[in-house]
Amino acid sequence: MTQLSSAKNNIITDEMRKAVESEPLSLEVFRDYISKGYIVIPKNINHKFEPVAVGKGTYIKVNANIGISSKKSSLDEELKKLQVATEAGAHSIMDLSTCNDFYYVREIRREIIKQSKIMVGTVPIYEISTKMFAEKKEINRISDKDILEIIKIQAEEGVDFMTIHAGVTQDVMRRLQNDPRVCGIVSRGGSMIAEWMKFNNKENPFLTLFDEILDIAYQYDVTLSLGDGLRPGSTIDGTDRAQIQELIVLGELVDRARDRGVQVMVEGPGHINISDVEMNIKLEKRICNEAPFYILGPVVTDCAPGYDHITAAIGSAIAGVAGADFLCYVTPAEHLHLPELQDVRDGVISSVIAAFAADLSLNKGNSREREMKMAKARKEINWGNMSNLALDKGKVDAAIETYQLKKSSECSMCGEFCSFKRNY
Amino acid sequence: MTQLSSAKNNIITDEMRKAVESEPLSLEVFRDYISKGYIVIPKNINHKFEPVAVGKGTYIKVNANIGISSKKSSLDEELKKLQVATEAGAHSIMDLSTCNDFYYVREIRREIIKQSKIMVGTVPIYEISTKMFAEKKEINRISDKDILEIIKIQAEEGVDFMTIHAGVTQDVMRRLQNDPRVCGIVSRGGSMIAEWMKFNNKENPFLTLFDEILDIAYQYDVTLSLGDGLRPGSTIDGTDRAQIQELIVLGELVDRARDRGVQVMVEGPGHINISDVEMNIKLEKRICNEAPFYILGPVVTDCAPGYDHITAAIGSAIAGVAGADFLCYVTPAEHLHLPELQDVRDGVISSVIAAFAADLSLNKGNSREREMKMAKARKEINWGNMSNLALDKGKVDAAIETYQLKKSSECSMCGEFCSFKRNY
Repeated sequence: MTQLSSAKNNIITDEMRKAVESEPLSLEVFRDYISKGYIVIPKNINHKFEPVAVGKGTYIKVNANIGISSKKSSLDEELKKLQVATEAGAHSIMDLSTCNDFYYVREIRREIIKQSKIMVGTVPIYEISTKMFAEKKEINRISDKDILEIIKIQAEEGVDFMTIHAGVTQDVMRRLQNDPRVCGIVSRGGSMIAEWMKFNNKENPFLTLFDEILDIAYQYDVTLSLGDGLRPGSTIDGTDRAQIQELIVLGELVDRARDRGVQVMVEGPGHINISDVEMNIKLEKRICNEAPFYILGPVVTDCAPGYDHITAAIGSAIAGVAGADFLCYVTPAEHLHLPELQDVRDGVISSVIAAFAADLSLNKGNSREREMKMAKARKEINWGNMSNLALDKGKVDAAIETYQLKKSSECSMCGEFCSFKRNY
Repeated sequence: MTQLSSAKNNIITDEMRKAVESEPLSLEVFRDYISKGYIVIPKNINHKFEPVAVGKGTYIKVNANIGISSKKSSLDEELKKLQVATEAGAHSIMDLSTCNDFYYVREIRREIIKQSKIMVGTVPIYEISTKMFAEKKEINRISDKDILEIIKIQAEEGVDFMTIHAGVTQDVMRRLQNDPRVCGIVSRGGSMIAEWMKFNNKENPFLTLFDEILDIAYQYDVTLSLGDGLRPGSTIDGTDRAQIQELIVLGELVDRARDRGVQVMVEGPGHINISDVEMNIKLEKRICNEAPFYILGPVVTDCAPGYDHITAAIGSAIAGVAGADFLCYVTPAEHLHLPELQDVRDGVISSVIAAFAADLSLNKGNSREREMKMAKARKEINWGNMSNLALDKGKVDAAIETYQLKKSSECSMCGEFCSFKRNY
């Protein structure tokens, strides 16, 4: 049984007991929300780690994308990224590896699952297309068998959640053509499927195979993450008809997954003008019946390459307040190059900050209490407490060391004229 | 005549002509808004530089705070910060220097005015209290003469705008006592004035001297920036009665300044929960009759020391959309130490990003056109255009160099599987 079907049957699982410990919800409300699909616990029955929950009323969670796109990176490097992301506070890692060496890509995925202490997500079409590439076959030749085989293998081997781009339908593609974009389809998976659909003149195979995929997902309790193949690649394209048409399809697929007892969340943009962020979140919540919303950023302008951890932190914080549940990080390297270790770290921390600021704005759980303690620590100029309460303790400790802050009774910004010394 | 009194008399000045060139407003609307006080052009008659406008309908502007707080920094270092801030896109610099060497503080201020190609602001009470400190006199002994003397000297020597904390009244202080804060008064100027008022049991001297200050400001066309001595030092204290009580006083002072023909803007928080940011901006616009709003951040959580350029970018972007006109940067060093050069750079860029994202959300001027060009450059994988359109060109150029991006026809994130190559 999956967490969803257990909850529907009024069964409280060990995973629920464990995951609720760190959430501001009672066990009964927690189970109730899981039974309705408002909360998911992405945890494959074959993957051992401390599970966390994503969805309504829980703290906002953060995912870090890693993985190679050529042999310029390596297994070792990606495992280091896993470690850095975990230490910085990520709740989840996605392995997005692709390259021309299928066996290397598979080895990386297996090692990441083995070593990860946080949930692991994948985009199966990446491994499928990598296999095709290695076999010198066109993407267009991907068969139903290829798709189900890789999904089955990944499920058996412990992937906790999978991005399935089942919403890129012929109907959605027709609407995209009628309302063209500047950047078109920027989702790697989405563009591959669009190509397959055009060449074969058939419906999206992930959609036609959706029942079979649900069967596999049910067996291993893989959470499906309904990918937004039509996510915009520029704020100019954001919230257009194709994006919203796909969202409607995803809403229907949410119902089907829940009916089958399969945990499901929905993926969202991407690149969104600030004025449209809240609306995007509320629309997903309505159309997809409060399915947990897993968003990428959104970055709120395209004009800041090199700083997309900041453009995304702005979008994520606003989205979090509006109800987004799960933030996929964006690193400073986004739109420029594959992230290095420092980029991974900066990306995770920026998302953790956005998540905390949003939870604080919603007065969720103990966020206000932590903020209160930090205010008191600052008033007392207690550097030890400030460090312990910081979202990145290491950063504060480094400043304490470099600037010898503990030797001073006054704030280093103002020196003699420190306002705290006057105590008004 | 000041810009305000000229505009009231239907006179279009050279400064108006120059400043409107880079704004999405017609000259007539621009003059009209200046005449009503909705827009200010902070430019002292004794300071030569290209003036820019702050206020309704103009692009959001960015200020960088610099200045020493002890001899750990130096004139040379602060002049370098001026240069870095200017190059990174700051429209304004504030010299907040204080230390035990009065003549050094004065020299720094004079050199900054001399070398700055952007507007220069100060907080006169810093120089006043520095002088007292050097003369071994208590802050409590500051006389009316001390105050007017320094304000007069700074005005003569070309300061474009001055923070005057005239809103810290006895009434406001009483309300603060009745509704205590965790962090109390964190404004340096505000805490000094509070101490003076308590010791002398008199009303705030900047308030009692306000007419005399207006006379000086009028003579040199110094824009008054009504300081928020009661700005919160923690999101826990944000938007409390003392802060709003002071805002009401500032609204009244806006009227007095405008009546006297003196350009005026209002300063705002500080530390504000995301849920209250929009409300803070709208309240100021209403209470202060659309006086330009100059905000510090706001940082949206206190739990991220080391990353307050990000917590402030979140707050600034939301505030910008709600109508904030002028963003005082916050650097990664805030709450830890005086900013280094890199901190100044990161602080300015983060504010520039927030300003642009907000202007874009408001579809202001050519912001959408720039965003559109960037989307096209990205679609074409045209690194040269991406660099030219970036808010930080240097950052993109460095990535192009390091990762040899121009040699590649595909996006370095996805390699062989680049979605743009599929062109859907």
